[in-house]
Amino acid sequence: MSEASTLHQELIVIDGQQINRWDDEVIAEQRRGGVTCLNATCSVWEDAREAIANIAAWYRRVRLNGQHLRIVANADDIRNAKQQGKLGVMLGFQNASPFEDDLSLVEVFYRLGVRVVQLTYNIQNLLGSSCYDPVDNGLTRFGQGVVREMNRLGMLVDLSHVGERTSRDAIEFSDRPVAITHANPSWMCDVARNKSDALLQVLAEHGGVIGCTAYPPFIGGREKTLDDFCAMVERLVEQIGIEHVAIGTDLTRKCISEDLSWLRNGRWRFPEPGQRLEWPEWPDWFRSAADFPNITEGLMRRGFSRDHVSAVMGGNWLRLFDETLGADAVSGAKAVASV
Amino acid sequence: MSEASTLHQELIVIDGQQINRWDDEVIAEQRRGGVTCLNATCSVWEDAREAIANIAAWYRRVRLNGQHLRIVANADDIRNAKQQGKLGVMLGFQNASPFEDDLSLVEVFYRLGVRVVQLTYNIQNLLGSSCYDPVDNGLTRFGQGVVREMNRLGMLVDLSHVGERTSRDAIEFSDRPVAITHANPSWMCDVARNKSDALLQVLAEHGGVIGCTAYPPFIGGREKTLDDFCAMVERLVEQIGIEHVAIGTDLTRKCISEDLSWLRNGRWRFPEPGQRLEWPEWPDWFRSAADFPNITEGLMRRGFSRDHVSAVMGGNWLRLFDETLGADAVSGAKAVASV
Repeated sequence: MSEASTLHQELIVIDGQQINRWDDEVIAEQRRGGVTCLNATCSVWEDAREAIANIAAWYRRVRLNGQHLRIVANADDIRNAKQQGKLGVMLGFQNASPFEDDLSLVEVFYRLGVRVVQLTYNIQNLLGSSCYDPVDNGLTRFGQGVVREMNRLGMLVDLSHVGERTSRDAIEFSDRPVAITHANPSWMCDVARNKSDALLQVLAEHGGVIGCTAYPPFIGGREKTLDDFCAMVERLVEQIGIEHVAIGTDLTRKCISEDLSWLRNGRWRFPEPGQRLEWPEWPDWFRSAADFPNITEGLMRRGFSRDHVSAVMGGNWLRLFDETLGADAVSGAKAVASV
Repeated sequence: MSEASTLHQELIVIDGQQINRWDDEVIAEQRRGGVTCLNATCSVWEDAREAIANIAAWYRRVRLNGQHLRIVANADDIRNAKQQGKLGVMLGFQNASPFEDDLSLVEVFYRLGVRVVQLTYNIQNLLGSSCYDPVDNGLTRFGQGVVREMNRLGMLVDLSHVGERTSRDAIEFSDRPVAITHANPSWMCDVARNKSDALLQVLAEHGGVIGCTAYPPFIGGREKTLDDFCAMVERLVEQIGIEHVAIGTDLTRKCISEDLSWLRNGRWRFPEPGQRLEWPEWPDWFRSAADFPNITEGLMRRGFSRDHVSAVMGGNWLRLFDETLGADAVSGAKAVASV
């Protein structure tokens, strides 16, 4: 077994974002890839009741696959998952839509186990502006209330799809560090979803973490090599510091055209007639979570130390979770998700 | 101070059911009456989303009145509430309607703190028949699933409004003892909501508890005296045993005509034209929860020992909660509601 394989098996590997159609094979791929924890999307446009259905589906999956799966609510749960050899699922939202217009729902979803919430998905919402909006007027008063409530409860703010000004506002408004769970620097590929140097700087100054994504449109196409990806990670580490760079693949295994239409259009616009959305093909070196060991190997090839590999592959997320999912305000929080 | 007052102050007083319009005065009445815990109704016809709004309203009340209120999720929480001098609110449903047709929602509401669920309100539902239905076909297969899930999680089954056959089925099907949180024996007053000797016998044989209600239509009218009520409690104790008899007032403080229409009609029938429902006036000796000490005094006057008063006023509920809200299957359950 190679040095990289051996190291990879020892690591706590955390993926900042995945949005798959979950079946036994997709779960098996995570295990084959040595994934300890992933942030699993439970909403993009869903309202409260619909998000509950998606969360309840995870409760059922865990009951059916208790030997392989568990819900995780904090960093210690993830450490335990590693010891148990289980895949830890952290419940997350890619949109605050399940909070509807109701601040009370933040605690409701906290109690149901949700720990990561992206403030906006792809359009302006009640909290702020997305990265695709022509004008970004920043974090709204409701958005401030949600961030404050998430700080109180111990939920991680995610800014991956959020507009630049709203992101900056949220970073500065939040009492705790925040995340960009799945995006790349704009210098890698200049698309709306990638992040400016200025924003990355503010994120890091406030203790935040960015998860680098392997999603082809955000790395400059699927022809980019594993070494291109790892060189991006290396340069980003030089730019904002080793403790702020992690992985968030944005993996979309087994998703179908209809899923893509839901992600793109939600209920807020109709698909164009005849439009048939296709998922971009993933790079050869990252076709599923089973390919996670490739990233460890790629980073080692670029000369990353074992400690730096460990930080990027999961250690930095773990540190951020320790700082944000502490839930001081809610006693017993750590146990909530341990069904 | 009378012997009764002194004893009352020492007691853990638990009310098996209240459904009030909650304001500061109603909360203050509970405290004046020495109430340690009450089962607060969060649904009668509500669906999942509506019940969540009612539960969230309790979270807000607790945040606003943290010095006086707490949510309780089990017997130990209630013991702590007594020590802290706080009113413990146990979240309950008078109908399984928030579970909709979805077994997954039982765990969802467990995690949100709900601990008592009446299987039906006043009409046939997906779980079984109510006491007002002309035919009772017993606990349905979905009803069995819900009882099994409530047993697993540690939620108390309530049969107060449930039909006789469905009640018997549920008692026998449940792995844990069950409750009739608010009803009286039929021999006190022969109305559909009161319970037959045969059912009370089965309830007691399976370790259950009935909470006697002071609601005038179920005691034979508001002219019934405190001593009539306490005589009923005494005879019921002789009939089914001291450990199975408690209090569940069914108090409706500050509820208005519109609330009564909701309780009576829900969405399943329209109010009759011109119908104006009026709340029955409560007896002089129990006009609000502030009158709870009267019951302690009335029981002592009838010669109840201190231990028997203690059992009826709260001890029996506490024992039942110890046996039913254990939540062995869900680690950390005890802490869930401790916000």
